[in-house]
Amino acid sequence: MIPLTPLAASLPSTVPFVGPEAQERARGAPFRARLGANENAFGTSPRAIEAMARAAAEAWQYGDPENFDLKSAIAEHYGVPAARIGVGEGIDGLLQVITRLFVTDGTPVVTSAGAYPTFNYHVNGFGGRLVTVPYRDDREDIDALLDAARREKAALIYLANPDNPMGTWHDADALRRLIEDIPEHAVLLLDEAYVEFAPAAAQLAMSVEHPRLIRLRTFSKAYGLAGMRVGYAVTTPEMASAFDKVRNHFGVNRVAQAGALAALQDHKFFRRMLADVHAAKVRIGAIAAAHGMTALPSATNFVALDTGFDGTVARALVAALSARGVFVRMPFVAPQDRCIRVAAGPDELLDVLDAELGAALAEATSVVAVAG
Amino acid sequence: MIPLTPLAASLPSTVPFVGPEAQERARGAPFRARLGANENAFGTSPRAIEAMARAAAEAWQYGDPENFDLKSAIAEHYGVPAARIGVGEGIDGLLQVITRLFVTDGTPVVTSAGAYPTFNYHVNGFGGRLVTVPYRDDREDIDALLDAARREKAALIYLANPDNPMGTWHDADALRRLIEDIPEHAVLLLDEAYVEFAPAAAQLAMSVEHPRLIRLRTFSKAYGLAGMRVGYAVTTPEMASAFDKVRNHFGVNRVAQAGALAALQDHKFFRRMLADVHAAKVRIGAIAAAHGMTALPSATNFVALDTGFDGTVARALVAALSARGVFVRMPFVAPQDRCIRVAAGPDELLDVLDAELGAALAEATSVVAVAG
Repeated sequence: MIPLTPLAASLPSTVPFVGPEAQERARGAPFRARLGANENAFGTSPRAIEAMARAAAEAWQYGDPENFDLKSAIAEHYGVPAARIGVGEGIDGLLQVITRLFVTDGTPVVTSAGAYPTFNYHVNGFGGRLVTVPYRDDREDIDALLDAARREKAALIYLANPDNPMGTWHDADALRRLIEDIPEHAVLLLDEAYVEFAPAAAQLAMSVEHPRLIRLRTFSKAYGLAGMRVGYAVTTPEMASAFDKVRNHFGVNRVAQAGALAALQDHKFFRRMLADVHAAKVRIGAIAAAHGMTALPSATNFVALDTGFDGTVARALVAALSARGVFVRMPFVAPQDRCIRVAAGPDELLDVLDAELGAALAEATSVVAVAG
Repeated sequence: MIPLTPLAASLPSTVPFVGPEAQERARGAPFRARLGANENAFGTSPRAIEAMARAAAEAWQYGDPENFDLKSAIAEHYGVPAARIGVGEGIDGLLQVITRLFVTDGTPVVTSAGAYPTFNYHVNGFGGRLVTVPYRDDREDIDALLDAARREKAALIYLANPDNPMGTWHDADALRRLIEDIPEHAVLLLDEAYVEFAPAAAQLAMSVEHPRLIRLRTFSKAYGLAGMRVGYAVTTPEMASAFDKVRNHFGVNRVAQAGALAALQDHKFFRRMLADVHAAKVRIGAIAAAHGMTALPSATNFVALDTGFDGTVARALVAALSARGVFVRMPFVAPQDRCIRVAAGPDELLDVLDAELGAALAEATSVVAVAG
């Protein structure tokens, strides 16, 4: 017996997501199309890759624990003071810091049923009590989130805009009203991991401030640096400074800082990437339509494809695609779990999806028909 | 007001170490000799640098959250089962995971006064109660640590072997006796960050197991990858699996995993690095002796240099060296704070130390004499 805290003893040894590598080890072959983790298969700015290769030669030195250069560049990018920025090991790392600051035994926290599981993992990990509200028309339901937060006296409200896993969004006006209505007992976490892909109307100005608002952004998606673990919060100086109470000060790796800085400054690559992602999403929609599936409107770099069936068929479809070398994932709860989720990527990856989707769908529907 | 937990509200926004970059920003110039963070200035295996540069091009993909390849390689390196290995974001990241598993409000934790401050930061951060025992003859005092742990019913005992900041060590026999005596209520954290530099007699065999023993090792020091944040625990499968309850599963960056794997396998570079570090420590001792200072015996990649004065002079010396472009640090508590701590490095860095030490020491002693 090891003397774990009562909370730690009560937690499962769990994992929010099984990685594609584990699936590849299980199936004994690499995926031919890695489209399941909302990664940016259009890759990373060549200037960022070069900056990381250069920084690798200095990897014997710790990274700057204050992330000064990166913070300054982010602040300049948005025209906000650097004191409003907090940098962390991806949004996942920041969610850990933030839940740790606000959640203890029994703290009520409000999110949507089927929203980001890693947030739930951290809330549970600090002993919080998750209160969930359902999606409404495949979007997170702002009014229901607010109602639940007021009713439960929640300390945290989580909203992703655009949403993962559905790709749907709310316009900036709706967000502005939500922010005006943040209850006094609550901090709003606005997870904007995918916001760079969103239409202008869904992009809330960075000048919008509130003492209990934390906006989370990342280099993992639009900047193609998922593997480097760099995210940031834009919030108040008071909040950003509170992160220093508990964060792993040397946690953001030196090469990651260099890569993020260079990626942020490569506007040309960024613009082409946005166009490539848009075209790929159009093609994913066409591939889906050719097999009787419907693409939901998407403000992200992925598309939720409505199978027209239920979660059982969608799960069978994910498995059948995986067996054929196509890695995708799907929403966790009904009725969103009628969909599968496919990330934008270059044509050579979408060709594989195109070639395999028909047979995989036939297999998924027949397996389920037999089982039924 | 933001609704922090009572524990979070009670914590200072602190930083265990001010980074050299912050000092460089303050002095308006880069250091000429970066010898203060126990980094390995002999650098990283060229094979590891190449592996990282290659991996940078795949940075759009998340790293394997199971760290499978790296774990397997570490297991093979030591001839132990992979289930005994837990990988994390440096020893700092692992210390956060471990304190979180074992420390809650008021949990007693035993360490040495003046030992690793980042461990203390995490213990305080989870509300633990630190109980410290003094060093004895510049070494951590195993008997005193055990006595305090029994008296306080401590949940964690922290011992670094070799020790940081003094560079001193205990032989494997003493460690074996300590491990046999771990109280039933306690887990022993044996921090072996510097063990690869230690004499064979101070290297405890990896076959030594105990249900409440966690050994911590890192790629930051001997493998020259401080900037990449990769550490690992060798412990029981039960303990390693408990890490999965709370760790940031995608936290170890993809490029870092690739670099650590390649560094572990470059035995030739490793052997030459050990010889280089040894020679540099001899030279640091000679430089110190030429200015009337004494090098303590060191089982690490750094040397504690006894100034022959007290903490006031040593602090003034660290400041005077910093003003002259030489970054070093020093122990935090008396009487160890009579020393400064200098990392091994190539001759061009030690040349700077050699050139500046005399004047810096004269300045430090005269300033203190005037102040006195």
